[in-house]
Amino acid sequence: MRAPHTELPAVAAELLSRLRARRPRVHCITNAVAQAFTANMLLAAGAVPSMTIDADEVADFVAGADALLVNLGTFDPARRAAAEIAVETANGKGKPWVLDPVLIDRTPRRAAYARALAAARPGAIRCNRAEFAALAQVSPEGGALARYALDSGAVVGVTGAIDLVTDGTRLAAIANGDPLMARITAMGCAASALVAAAHAVADDAWTATGAALLWVGVAGEIAAKTAQGPGSLAVGLIDALHRLDAGALIAHARVT
Amino acid sequence: MRAPHTELPAVAAELLSRLRARRPRVHCITNAVAQAFTANMLLAAGAVPSMTIDADEVADFVAGADALLVNLGTFDPARRAAAEIAVETANGKGKPWVLDPVLIDRTPRRAAYARALAAARPGAIRCNRAEFAALAQVSPEGGALARYALDSGAVVGVTGAIDLVTDGTRLAAIANGDPLMARITAMGCAASALVAAAHAVADDAWTATGAALLWVGVAGEIAAKTAQGPGSLAVGLIDALHRLDAGALIAHARVT
Amino acid sequence: MRAPHTELPAVAAELLSRLRARRPRVHCITNAVAQAFTANMLLAAGAVPSMTIDADEVADFVAGADALLVNLGTFDPARRAAAEIAVETANGKGKPWVLDPVLIDRTPRRAAYARALAAARPGAIRCNRAEFAALAQVSPEGGALARYALDSGAVVGVTGAIDLVTDGTRLAAIANGDPLMARITAMGCAASALVAAAHAVADDAWTATGAALLWVGVAGEIAAKTAQGPGSLAVGLIDALHRLDAGALIAHARVT
Repeated sequence: MRAPHTELPAVAAELLSRLRARRPRVHCITNAVAQAFTANMLLAAGAVPSMTIDADEVADFVAGADALLVNLGTFDPARRAAAEIAVETANGKGKPWVLDPVLIDRTPRRAAYARALAAARPGAIRCNRAEFAALAQVSPEGGALARYALDSGAVVGVTGAIDLVTDGTRLAAIANGDPLMARITAMGCAASALVAAAHAVADDAWTATGAALLWVGVAGEIAAKTAQGPGSLAVGLIDALHRLDAGALIAHARVT
Repeated sequence: MRAPHTELPAVAAELLSRLRARRPRVHCITNAVAQAFTANMLLAAGAVPSMTIDADEVADFVAGADALLVNLGTFDPARRAAAEIAVETANGKGKPWVLDPVLIDRTPRRAAYARALAAARPGAIRCNRAEFAALAQVSPEGGALARYALDSGAVVGVTGAIDLVTDGTRLAAIANGDPLMARITAMGCAASALVAAAHAVADDAWTATGAALLWVGVAGEIAAKTAQGPGSLAVGLIDALHRLDAGALIAHARVT
Repeated sequence: MRAPHTELPAVAAELLSRLRARRPRVHCITNAVAQAFTANMLLAAGAVPSMTIDADEVADFVAGADALLVNLGTFDPARRAAAEIAVETANGKGKPWVLDPVLIDRTPRRAAYARALAAARPGAIRCNRAEFAALAQVSPEGGALARYALDSGAVVGVTGAIDLVTDGTRLAAIANGDPLMARITAMGCAASALVAAAHAVADDAWTATGAALLWVGVAGEIAAKTAQGPGSLAVGLIDALHRLDAGALIAHARVT
């Protein structure tokens, strides 16, 4: 019997085709640093971004969207108010949503807020190791990721040199990407937005999360081959994501 | 007799020269997603951007500017307050201003707000087809654009595969650009800012609007020849706009 | 006896090595136009940016950072509140901070605010000539820069075709850079952030300010050799800053 994650590259290719065909709307409550890069990454993949954080209209935008991202970077009162309305709307309408608990390891207040949001049933949580540790109050070793996923009901995607994606029963380890990607601001934020986009076209949250992280990792790896530094890597990654096809995705994927 | 729009490419070249010589200041109340790309596009063309949305100082900035852009993307209370002061200041000082009713097809509240602003006498309104339909409450077919322009007193620039620019009596159709431009966030927002910049140096709003949309369309088309995707297209478009000269503009223009 | 500034290129190379080894955290209260480019420039140099402006958490971020930037572009009430908390925290914890009084020549209100901040003991102030004149209420000719530096206790870095850096006793003139850099939005804002980053690893504020402006000037000059316009220059400058080594820095430096 093959483990389900060995099928992830082919499924990721199929989901990318669906994304380009269906062009889902992804509403993003995200930080101002990340907004433009996130929008461009969503557009490159085939999704349609919107970004308003106005409390008066966020419910209309989420109701008309196919998925929602809530990202905690630069988290001011306006974004907190918008996030609460957005999550309530998404849950009420049965729209998938993704949490990105950016830099919650830096302030206890932000970590506490992230834990409250994590309890509101996101489809997935995408973060780095330090952010996971602040969220789960345990380091992401051993069975901690799986236990957190089972307890919270959210797929957990912890990115780094190797990305780990688990729903508590399935675990994929994605070894794609390039170290220089860590020198581009909002790379993780944009990956989280793509996880949300994948939720709009996938059959389950684990597949969506793994597929989106694989798209980003492979596109980054392709772009890194010709990049001269983080500036050209960011540009090339958008290009590579736009041009990514099933052949390249499957050929480059290193998933175990 | 030649229709006035056959002269648009040569006039657009003349206006670009004026822009570079005079370097008008353009104050932009625009969304956070668009701010950096918009500022870079204005700088590439030769204008000088400012972007504050602080209600306490927006009047000073508008009073010192040569043109104003009001863009409704990510439209929070701070931007609404700033927009009202900015429009009042611009109208009071006789400065031209341009309205970009971003995504007003997504929420009735935003559409109502855009209609109120459209009644405050912008020199031009730049939008896409869906936004026009939400603004005018009629689809942009037949004589609807011309009627709206005559009724509102604003030049209407509706962009898409073919850009249409009318003041109710003159109509230019610009067939430049590249489909990949739609995959770059804030492309329309930046085009609207250039329409505002053109107003600062043009003799009339129809010419300004047509000229600016032609600059963007031709620069995009030139950049698309060597772009590898939307990332390199965005970079190349800024370069192409900076390097655009009368010869290239007139040679590439497809205006009817 | 050699004047200290003839050693600046070698010291700047040493500080860049330190920055890459220590990876200081730089908290930036900066305008939305500049946030992404500033973060990418800091990452390219080797620093770790954070950008929140939320009054509830800015003290935690500044307390955990190694240096602070306060930039006045797009200066809304939220950023003013954050700046006050941030400066108080930085001063209380003995963290260096840098002031960038963006566009204070455009409104008296912003100039008055900048003067109040300048009295709160920044390590350095980075601005252009018009901004200096609005801050010091005297043009930056003759001994005005040195007098202001002595009176305020802040190093002054006035950028332009030639960057001048003085603490009142030492003066360096840096002739690197390229005129096209002025056509990239947030170039000065990003330079100010690098000045803050350099403060985190330097022994004194004058060296830090001169070193950071030299990094930017040389990286810009290297990037300008192959740039096709301001779009590719911005991308190439990030790449060049990331790849900058002691040999290139010293070979290109024009400091008197």
